[in-house]
Amino acid sequence: MSNPTAAMLVIGDEILSGRTRDSNMHHLAGELTKRGIRLTEVRVVPDDRKAIIDAVRALSEACDWVFTSGGIGPTHDDITADCIAEAFGVPLDVREDARALLAAHASARGNELNEARLRMARIPEGATLIDNPISAAPGFTLNNVHVMAGVPTIFEAMVAGVLPTLAGGTPLLSQSLTIRRPEGEVAAPLRTLAEEFADLSVGSYPFVRDGAYGTNIVIRGTDASRVDAAMTRLAAMFPEATA
Amino acid sequence: MSNPTAAMLVIGDEILSGRTRDSNMHHLAGELTKRGIRLTEVRVVPDDRKAIIDAVRALSEACDWVFTSGGIGPTHDDITADCIAEAFGVPLDVREDARALLAAHASARGNELNEARLRMARIPEGATLIDNPISAAPGFTLNNVHVMAGVPTIFEAMVAGVLPTLAGGTPLLSQSLTIRRPEGEVAAPLRTLAEEFADLSVGSYPFVRDGAYGTNIVIRGTDASRVDAAMTRLAAMFPEATA
Repeated sequence: MSNPTAAMLVIGDEILSGRTRDSNMHHLAGELTKRGIRLTEVRVVPDDRKAIIDAVRALSEACDWVFTSGGIGPTHDDITADCIAEAFGVPLDVREDARALLAAHASARGNELNEARLRMARIPEGATLIDNPISAAPGFTLNNVHVMAGVPTIFEAMVAGVLPTLAGGTPLLSQSLTIRRPEGEVAAPLRTLAEEFADLSVGSYPFVRDGAYGTNIVIRGTDASRVDAAMTRLAAMFPEATA
Repeated sequence: MSNPTAAMLVIGDEILSGRTRDSNMHHLAGELTKRGIRLTEVRVVPDDRKAIIDAVRALSEACDWVFTSGGIGPTHDDITADCIAEAFGVPLDVREDARALLAAHASARGNELNEARLRMARIPEGATLIDNPISAAPGFTLNNVHVMAGVPTIFEAMVAGVLPTLAGGTPLLSQSLTIRRPEGEVAAPLRTLAEEFADLSVGSYPFVRDGAYGTNIVIRGTDASRVDAAMTRLAAMFPEATA
């Protein structure tokens, strides 16, 4: 498939320690799939300079787009902006338009734009700001990397702002069928189907419901007539299955 | 910290397409932390030979232990065992003890041990089996890589079987404090604290509750008296905070 590719980099000790359950990956995966952008890799790294820089460079080279979440707040362990600047060898400083956004937000709430908050206006040179409709502190895009907040509501708002600006691909279509038989019994006919429709993705997801084994089959592709044809073949193989 | 390190590799198109929400990462992260093993990286890759092999090799070199989830079922897209064998340059074939486990399980359920199911008895040479108390098909350990199922109940059962066999580290202790002030106002004192207690990890997690901003502070370390000392300093900085 020649659809655009994307990678995600989740940044934060709290995910790796098990304190926080990441939800941004699942959200981004669904949004990208809808737009025909293939998410080909996700990495989760700690709040560690070298780990972040190495991952950003690797993913930025491997994919059309990279999306990061986490590490752009006001505290000492928020080092994502510094790392992105270093990964691309550009300077980082407080930027006037970002400072103005934070100042307006702070003033509207009767807060002080202190030194910690001002850290969030430090933007790598050459970046474009990403709007934060929730708490003002902007994300940014530098080269092919979109840098966003880790707080899920803000992350999701930033994704909603960024995605319409990207060229998508042919949307990926999917159809599914539920077969009330264990995966081990549907595997052989499924392999035949996957070989016959090599241009499609044929996925198989086992489940247990009320003590009985079953398998969900999902067929994905960009050509609706091919997906239809594969579903017709599949339904003929398993007449007892339900859509 | 000299605690052992671990990485996780999540394998499966269904996670990257957004169809399935992974829960194994969060589970493993918590279990490792309890045992004093530091999870330093997670990667999610598709059901793609090269992607899996490259990631296994990289993570196996970088960490003491690697845990994989997914891709060890009976269908054509279950290629994890093949990839692990190839990553370490060892042959892969049906192994008698694994075959016997599957045969007993199938026979007890009145199922046939067909060719698809027999795929799950293909184990790389030199590996140790990991018990699957739920559906019999075993995981395996080869070198420093533990290969486990993606279905959460089975993954969790396999983790429970493997972890007691690994040397853990000094368990990581954590204490936390909730401050009903926005992160931007606690960042400066927090930085001072983090510099003073450089041997500890001082994390800061903003939240919004009933429309008001707050910050959870988590202090982690292996030395209980140091964690206590840092908490005492922190509580003095924010007398209004609650444990």
